[in-house]
Amino acid sequence: MTAIRIGIVGYGNLGKGVEKSIRQNSDMELVAIFTRRDPQSIQAHVPVVSLDEAESYKGKVDVMILCGGSATDLPEQGPQLARMFHTVDSFDTHARIPEYFESVNSAAAANGHVSVISTGWDPGLFSLNRLLFQSILPEGNEYTFWGRGVSQGHSDAIRRVEGVKNGVQYTIPSDEAVAKVRAGENPKLTTRDKHVRECYIVAEADADQARIEAEIKSMPNYFADYDTIVHFISEEELKMNHSAMPHGGLVFRSGMTGEGTAQIMEFGLNLGSNPEFTASVLVAYARAVSKLAARGESGARTVFDIPFGLMSPKSPEQLRKELL
Amino acid sequence: MTAIRIGIVGYGNLGKGVEKSIRQNSDMELVAIFTRRDPQSIQAHVPVVSLDEAESYKGKVDVMILCGGSATDLPEQGPQLARMFHTVDSFDTHARIPEYFESVNSAAAANGHVSVISTGWDPGLFSLNRLLFQSILPEGNEYTFWGRGVSQGHSDAIRRVEGVKNGVQYTIPSDEAVAKVRAGENPKLTTRDKHVRECYIVAEADADQARIEAEIKSMPNYFADYDTIVHFISEEELKMNHSAMPHGGLVFRSGMTGEGTAQIMEFGLNLGSNPEFTASVLVAYARAVSKLAARGESGARTVFDIPFGLMSPKSPEQLRKELL
Repeated sequence: MTAIRIGIVGYGNLGKGVEKSIRQNSDMELVAIFTRRDPQSIQAHVPVVSLDEAESYKGKVDVMILCGGSATDLPEQGPQLARMFHTVDSFDTHARIPEYFESVNSAAAANGHVSVISTGWDPGLFSLNRLLFQSILPEGNEYTFWGRGVSQGHSDAIRRVEGVKNGVQYTIPSDEAVAKVRAGENPKLTTRDKHVRECYIVAEADADQARIEAEIKSMPNYFADYDTIVHFISEEELKMNHSAMPHGGLVFRSGMTGEGTAQIMEFGLNLGSNPEFTASVLVAYARAVSKLAARGESGARTVFDIPFGLMSPKSPEQLRKELL
Repeated sequence: MTAIRIGIVGYGNLGKGVEKSIRQNSDMELVAIFTRRDPQSIQAHVPVVSLDEAESYKGKVDVMILCGGSATDLPEQGPQLARMFHTVDSFDTHARIPEYFESVNSAAAANGHVSVISTGWDPGLFSLNRLLFQSILPEGNEYTFWGRGVSQGHSDAIRRVEGVKNGVQYTIPSDEAVAKVRAGENPKLTTRDKHVRECYIVAEADADQARIEAEIKSMPNYFADYDTIVHFISEEELKMNHSAMPHGGLVFRSGMTGEGTAQIMEFGLNLGSNPEFTASVLVAYARAVSKLAARGESGARTVFDIPFGLMSPKSPEQLRKELL
């Protein structure tokens, strides 16, 4: 079997995660990394190429994995690269997905390419499970918990507080709330009931820590509606213990069949590294893209359109025999 | 939209569950129940028809949901009905799935029908998750726990013990083992570590309960390798508290990305009624079958071949907008 030839577009945390994931998949081969930065500034074991020269890799890359951001990179790069290659991305601006789908779909379909958009875990695996759960249990309540994980938005917010030198914020699901849902109690949960927010702060030497803590805890939208725990730590401790990017979460459906029979479905992720996991999802969908392309399909797809069998290196016969 | 016209073949616990599930899905309509028994012996709100007359329902039923057993019913009925109708079933004899697939595939393909085999939760949703998990995390350990639920095989085994009038056996995952897996400890678990077996026994009036308990706990294959708890209760208590058919379980992958980053994926079910839940899965796949048929596809399929989007009554546009 010929290896699936992969290109990575964008070499941040996600792109580096894709590089690592490809090493775990023997049916794939990394061909090149494409960047908007100066290619000379990136050290890698494969060619690093200016994104402007991507076209010269037509015929040399089977699937481009787009690792740029959803705010400005992907709206431009998604359709642009779908004209030249099969692609997969993790576009995650929920509200703009229909519009993004149309734009990538036009570009991909017109050029005979397949593009899977908005993979990852949310959107992605969580969306898939919500769909599965509500299709099987049309009557019921859905619950989503996020964490334990770093929220970039909340970490940015605490770093904007006067006297804060650096800081990280973790979103943590409430054990009590999760236990109630798991037990089928169908609780009504407020924002405060569902998640706790925990902040690790490096304060400026002369800063008033009590004032910082009060300011964080009362910050509207970000913290006021939550129980928030604030720890002050040193810059060294922050670097040593809070540089990883863990995340995860839980999706539940607490449903009902027949005459009030409780049925609970649950999907959970506990991720040591959010970008490395998201990268691994992208890589599995890149395999699906290459199989769809081999069938002659074209156009944009989402996780809802992709049978799980296509994500595996195994044949349908092997899957039926070993896994069903 | 015209409702999807459903026929139920076999009116045991599973068939009755399908009948209830259809009531929760407004895009479906139950047309008739087909049985090998005397149709007069079954009371229902729709026609009850002898299975021998199923052919007269060609053109009146869109999808037949086969609710017979895997040992003797489905090996015969699966291919037989796939010649006449689109079908979905829950064939669950793991070792014989490849052979059953071929036999249903030939019958369905030759007659332009679509048949989804081996749905339900194991095989079915658990298989899907194992496939998803290993496709995303190729390096890692897989764990499956079953229960808390009634095991028919073990319940039968205790009822064969001399002096036992009636009894029910529950398989229960060990909380401690589950906690270790959830925490990413990658434990090596023996059979005894993973599950506890709990038996509720109605003994004959003159039976030696100590002898019964000892005999159960030392029974090879069924109980000897487990920690087993035995309770003696009255026939009334058994009927009142142990007539439900709860089940469920957990599938985990404790995987690794990059340089030893732990990543844990989990899927769990806590089912008040095993047959009602399995029925709800069959009904969701019946919808997928009708969509595949509308596309002109034919042949046998498994859960690995079916995109989740096809299980939903919602359109692809709606799914992208509301759920992605």
